[in-house]
Amino acid sequence: MQYQFADRVARAPKSFLEELFRVSSDPSIISFAGGLPSAALIDTAGIARAAREVMEEDPQVALQYTTTDGYLPLREYIADRYRHRLGITATAEEIQIVNGSQQCLDLFAKLFLNKGDHVGMERPGYLGAIEAFSLYEPVIDTVPLEEDGPDLEVFGRMVRNNRPKFFYGIPNSQNPSGRTYSQEKRKAIAEILAGTETVFYEDDAFGELFFDTQPRLPVKRYLPDQAVISGSFSKTVAPGMRIGWMFAPAEVLQQFNVVKQAADLHSNFLCQKILHRYLTTSDPDAHIKKIVAVYNRKCQLMCDLFDDLMPALSHTNPEGGMFLMATLPEGLSSRKVFDEGVKNKVAVLPGLPFYVDGGGTDTIRLNFSAASEDQIADGMHRLAQVVATLCQGQ
Amino acid sequence: MQYQFADRVARAPKSFLEELFRVSSDPSIISFAGGLPSAALIDTAGIARAAREVMEEDPQVALQYTTTDGYLPLREYIADRYRHRLGITATAEEIQIVNGSQQCLDLFAKLFLNKGDHVGMERPGYLGAIEAFSLYEPVIDTVPLEEDGPDLEVFGRMVRNNRPKFFYGIPNSQNPSGRTYSQEKRKAIAEILAGTETVFYEDDAFGELFFDTQPRLPVKRYLPDQAVISGSFSKTVAPGMRIGWMFAPAEVLQQFNVVKQAADLHSNFLCQKILHRYLTTSDPDAHIKKIVAVYNRKCQLMCDLFDDLMPALSHTNPEGGMFLMATLPEGLSSRKVFDEGVKNKVAVLPGLPFYVDGGGTDTIRLNFSAASEDQIADGMHRLAQVVATLCQGQ
Repeated sequence: MQYQFADRVARAPKSFLEELFRVSSDPSIISFAGGLPSAALIDTAGIARAAREVMEEDPQVALQYTTTDGYLPLREYIADRYRHRLGITATAEEIQIVNGSQQCLDLFAKLFLNKGDHVGMERPGYLGAIEAFSLYEPVIDTVPLEEDGPDLEVFGRMVRNNRPKFFYGIPNSQNPSGRTYSQEKRKAIAEILAGTETVFYEDDAFGELFFDTQPRLPVKRYLPDQAVISGSFSKTVAPGMRIGWMFAPAEVLQQFNVVKQAADLHSNFLCQKILHRYLTTSDPDAHIKKIVAVYNRKCQLMCDLFDDLMPALSHTNPEGGMFLMATLPEGLSSRKVFDEGVKNKVAVLPGLPFYVDGGGTDTIRLNFSAASEDQIADGMHRLAQVVATLCQGQ
Repeated sequence: MQYQFADRVARAPKSFLEELFRVSSDPSIISFAGGLPSAALIDTAGIARAAREVMEEDPQVALQYTTTDGYLPLREYIADRYRHRLGITATAEEIQIVNGSQQCLDLFAKLFLNKGDHVGMERPGYLGAIEAFSLYEPVIDTVPLEEDGPDLEVFGRMVRNNRPKFFYGIPNSQNPSGRTYSQEKRKAIAEILAGTETVFYEDDAFGELFFDTQPRLPVKRYLPDQAVISGSFSKTVAPGMRIGWMFAPAEVLQQFNVVKQAADLHSNFLCQKILHRYLTTSDPDAHIKKIVAVYNRKCQLMCDLFDDLMPALSHTNPEGGMFLMATLPEGLSSRKVFDEGVKNKVAVLPGLPFYVDGGGTDTIRLNFSAASEDQIADGMHRLAQVVATLCQGQ
C-alpha cells in the first residue's frame, strides 16, 4: 500500500542518526559523536532510594493519572531555584513539566508557528530544534553565532525585516559550538527585541554546567514577558526519566498546556515524584559540582590534545556544557573525517545537520562528557591519525 | 505583550476540563465525570518490587538516554502478546513505544494530516482524539456509532466521497459510548476500506477489559497493511508511567519514529524497564481478570440503578471498558444535568465535547471504574434526584 503521509514529513531533514546508531553499537569505536551525559556520574543510589520511598509512601497516587501541568511541588522547586540561582521572579504557575526539554521544542513550535512563519536561530543551530521546528514548515532564518553570541547586526536586521515568531538560542555552552553569549550581548538582544512581537526562546540545557559553577543571567532577566526558558534534569540528574520543563509567562503557558494535553495528557508522574523526592532529600548542588569538575577536566584534556596533536584545526574553548566544535583545515571535508574516523574506530559528528543551508562541511562537533579520560586520550590520537592521513592525501 | 499564537490553537475545542478539575478537587462530590481506572486495583507491591529490581541491576542504563523506538524486550513482549492473544502477526519492528496512547493520536495526525485533509471518526467520538487531531486543522467527518459499530452506509459514502487519510475508531468498549463493534461490522469495514487509501486507526485502550475476558478480532486482522492499533498499559497496569504503543506496518512506523524523535527523543526509559520487569515476573492475565471482575460488577450496578431509579433515561450496556452513555429524556439538557449535579454533589460528563458538530446536548457519559460500589450507589441516587427535579421543572 502507498501511504499518504503529510507534506511536513518530507520537510524533516534527513537524519544522521542511523549512521550514528551503527557507530554507537560498535564497542570498539570511541565515540565523540553522541550527546550523552556521563552515565558514571548518575547518582543511581540516591535515585534508587528516592524511588523506594515514593513507592512505599504514595504508590497509588504516583501510578495514577495526574494533571497536565505536572507535579506542583516539583514545579515549585524549579521556580524557587530560578529565584535563588538567578534572582529572577518565577512562580509554579509559570512552570510546565514536559518529557525532556526536546518536547518544549515541539510544543512551542506547534503553539506559535503557522506554515511559512519565520523563526530565527543560531548558525550553527541545535539539530534537535531544526528537526522539531521543520515539521511545522516555517522559514528558518539563521544568525551567525560568534564567539560571544549572535551577530547583532544580522540579528537586528532579521528581527526587523522578517518578524520571526520567536528566536531560538542556547546562550549557555551552546550545542554544537560550546559557545556562551556574553552578558553584553544578552542585554543587547533584549534591547533589540523589546517592543517587537518576537519572543526569545532560551534553551538552557547546560546553564548549570559552567566550569566556574557561576550562573549567567538569562535574556529573560531583561525581557520577562517576552522570553521563555526550557530546562532539563537530563544533564544534572538523569536523562532516562525524561523530565524537563518550560518556564514561560502564565499567559503563554496556559496555551502551551492545551497543546501539551493534546500531545500526551501529562508527563510520567512516577518519575516526577521520584525526581522531586531525590532533589529535596539529596544535595543537588554538591552533585552538580562533581559533574562539572569532571567535565571541566575532560574538556581541557580534549582541547589540549587538539592543540598538541592537530594544530591545523581550530576549536572553540567552552566555558561549560558537553560539546566543543572544531574547524577543519581548508579543503578537508567533515563527512570524510566521519567516514575515515569510523574506519579508524573514532567517531565525530560532522557539522552538516546543524546548518539548514548546507554549511558545516568544514566543522565537526565533539562530545566530551560521555567518554572517559582514557578514551578521550585514545580517541583524540586516532582522530589525529585520521586528520594527518586525509591532509596528506590532499 | 500580545502573543502571536499559531492559527491551529484557535481550532482547539474549548475544553471542559477546567470545570472538571474544579469538580474533582472537591472530595464531597462523587464523580462519574472523569476517566480514571481504579487506583485500588493497581498492583503497587508488584510494581514496587519491579522498580527495586531494575534499580539494583541496571540503573545506569535505565537512567541514561536510549533509542526512540523504545525498549526492545518490551516491544517484543507486546508483539508476542498480539500473536498469542489475537492470532495476528506482529514483530517488534512494528511496535513503537509512546508516552501513553494519547501520544499516538498526536503523532499519527502529525504524520498524516495536511491542513484541510479529511479524517473520519465515530459520532460520538473520543474527545482526546478530537483535541489532538484539531490542532492539525483537518476536516473531521463523523459516522454515527450504532449499537454494533459505525453506520456502514454513511461510512462507505464518507470513504468514497471524502477520501479521509484515516478513520479513527475505538471498536472495543468505545469511549464515550461503551459500545463494541460486532465482528461482522469489523469485516465489513475492512471490505469497504480495501483498495482505498484510507488507513483504519484502531484505538484499543479497552480491548483487554471485556467482562467475558474474550478478545475480539481487530480490523487489522483483515487489513494488515492498512490498519494500525494503539495500545496502552494505563488500564491494565498503571497510567502514571505513561507507557503506550503504536502497532503499525514497519513502513509507517519508520516515519512515525521520525516524528516521535522530533517530539521528545524517546519515552521514559526507567518506566519502560520497570514495566517490562513487572510484566515478565508477575501474572498480568490473572491481574487483568481481577480488574475485569470488579469493573463488571460496577457496570452492572450502575446499569441496574439506571433502570430502577431513572427509567426515563436509556443507557448503553457495555460489554467491557470503563464507560457507559445515557440518553436524557426529551428536552432535558446535559449541561443542566452537569450543573445541577455538581450542586447535588454528583458529577457526570455532558456529551458535548464528544461531538464536533454541536451534538451531545441530550447525552451524558458516566465512568464506572474509578468510584467504589458504595459511591456508585450513592452517586446514582443523587443523580436520580437531580433528574427528577429537572423533569418536574420542565
